[in-house]
Amino acid sequence: MNWKSEIELAATRIAGHVQKTPVMETSGFGLDYPVEMKLEHLQHTGSFKARGAFNTLLSKDVPEAGIVAASGGNHGAAVAYAAHELGHHAQIYVPEMAGPEKIRLIQSTGADLNVVAGEYSNALDQAKAFETRTGAMQVHAYDADATVAGQGTCFAEWEEQGLVADTVLIAVGGGGLVAGALAWFGKARKVVAVEPETSRALNAALEAGEPVDVDVAGVAANALGARRIGSICFDLARDLGVTSVTVPDAAITQAQTVLWRERHLLVEPAGATALAALMSGAYTPEPGERVAVLLCGGNLSHDPLA
Amino acid sequence: MNWKSEIELAATRIAGHVQKTPVMETSGFGLDYPVEMKLEHLQHTGSFKARGAFNTLLSKDVPEAGIVAASGGNHGAAVAYAAHELGHHAQIYVPEMAGPEKIRLIQSTGADLNVVAGEYSNALDQAKAFETRTGAMQVHAYDADATVAGQGTCFAEWEEQGLVADTVLIAVGGGGLVAGALAWFGKARKVVAVEPETSRALNAALEAGEPVDVDVAGVAANALGARRIGSICFDLARDLGVTSVTVPDAAITQAQTVLWRERHLLVEPAGATALAALMSGAYTPEPGERVAVLLCGGNLSHDPLA
Repeated sequence: MNWKSEIELAATRIAGHVQKTPVMETSGFGLDYPVEMKLEHLQHTGSFKARGAFNTLLSKDVPEAGIVAASGGNHGAAVAYAAHELGHHAQIYVPEMAGPEKIRLIQSTGADLNVVAGEYSNALDQAKAFETRTGAMQVHAYDADATVAGQGTCFAEWEEQGLVADTVLIAVGGGGLVAGALAWFGKARKVVAVEPETSRALNAALEAGEPVDVDVAGVAANALGARRIGSICFDLARDLGVTSVTVPDAAITQAQTVLWRERHLLVEPAGATALAALMSGAYTPEPGERVAVLLCGGNLSHDPLA
Repeated sequence: MNWKSEIELAATRIAGHVQKTPVMETSGFGLDYPVEMKLEHLQHTGSFKARGAFNTLLSKDVPEAGIVAASGGNHGAAVAYAAHELGHHAQIYVPEMAGPEKIRLIQSTGADLNVVAGEYSNALDQAKAFETRTGAMQVHAYDADATVAGQGTCFAEWEEQGLVADTVLIAVGGGGLVAGALAWFGKARKVVAVEPETSRALNAALEAGEPVDVDVAGVAANALGARRIGSICFDLARDLGVTSVTVPDAAITQAQTVLWRERHLLVEPAGATALAALMSGAYTPEPGERVAVLLCGGNLSHDPLA
């Protein structure tokens, strides 16, 4: 797979459908060095997932039966939004833990939504059954080439916007986003994969030498709670090398609070997870090492204006 | 006054002390045209006010007695922050209507804070008494040259970032920000001054031909609730021309809600007021007219993470 050219193709395909998200250089957060940030939580439907969703729908023949997806919430919202924009029917399965605001967001796109008891894997089982029953096209949340190439456009865009960092910190759930980063950057920049201690599919896979099942829990579980890392991500991480770190839930909540109080950036716990690695010391840059943090998602489980 | 050169001087003076805030081109909000936005609510202390505060403190000899300011909240927070950063004592007076989060923000800077019954003008009376009593330097929230020149740097920065709009919409309270815009743009771009119907100091002054007192109330009162437009702003608006429009509170709340739900930008009511003029039709661009909206403040009166 020539990932660079796949990502460039994806960027051309989805231009006009996705938001070019702003970047900033900032400081604070109790850190004694500046941090570049990309505000990808300002993407359509509040996360990077819109990139992979549009790339998938625009690069494949969508059947009459439409689209089906399972999601902790963000991917479902993105697929539902992309399907609506492109005129396809979407059937979305989310676990209850997605929370009322993500559920409201998906409903607002006009998609058919099914809320499933349990966690992401339960929603995925039902989505697979729907796919078999109806012939709808399944859009996987992270372990598909078109999804990974779509997420990779985020990093191509960031470089066009003048990214200077040596090292880019990225939160990891199933691994679609970090796979996109590895696929785009190759060995040109260091990628730090940040996971909650309570949901460490990549960290555990790297330890075991292969993808393994992990338990998922914690404050970021509805976005990062994948039981098993995607094989595309695992292969890229093994082949290109990635620095894997984990952070406790308290560090995620702290980073989320400080992002709001110091910088008026309101993100969901997953969106604060990469910064939490710097604030907690899970990752400490070398002197002179320039770092960047992607804010990947902004869908809170409650309404912040209520 | 050569405003252009004053603003360029201010920009040099405050560089390194203020955040360069990101810009984006976006669409949605029920509008059939794109909108450029500058996310100035991501400024230090959550509003553009940090620009004028730093410019004032860095261009004057601050007495031993330090700094005093009265504020609906945002200016007080900015002055307190700038004073702390530059090593001065700050005494801040805010009305109760500032709300608990703005009060917490000011306290977090280490300033001495006095919460005053009533509205902004009551806080200003007490700040003036403190100035007389102690010799502290009063930093006016909007009607001072150094304040206006500082706020003007926001628009100089925006042009450096590639602003293309023909027309820039700006929320108006006491007029420091819109004065900075008029001072920088001159007649090169059209400036639309947007005020709540419930707090229309500029609109009433233009109608009367001179600054007059107005009643202040409504959802944005703790940021835009000035009883009388500043004379610097009024003179610039009269000499250069400004389009003055007003919006109902319901339109402000609607714009605030849509900014969050569609774009994950969480701003205070004042920060949504300029967009409300487009969404409500209070200002409708001509075909082909390119518009820009400044998001000027993000300090909610409640904690959105609670």
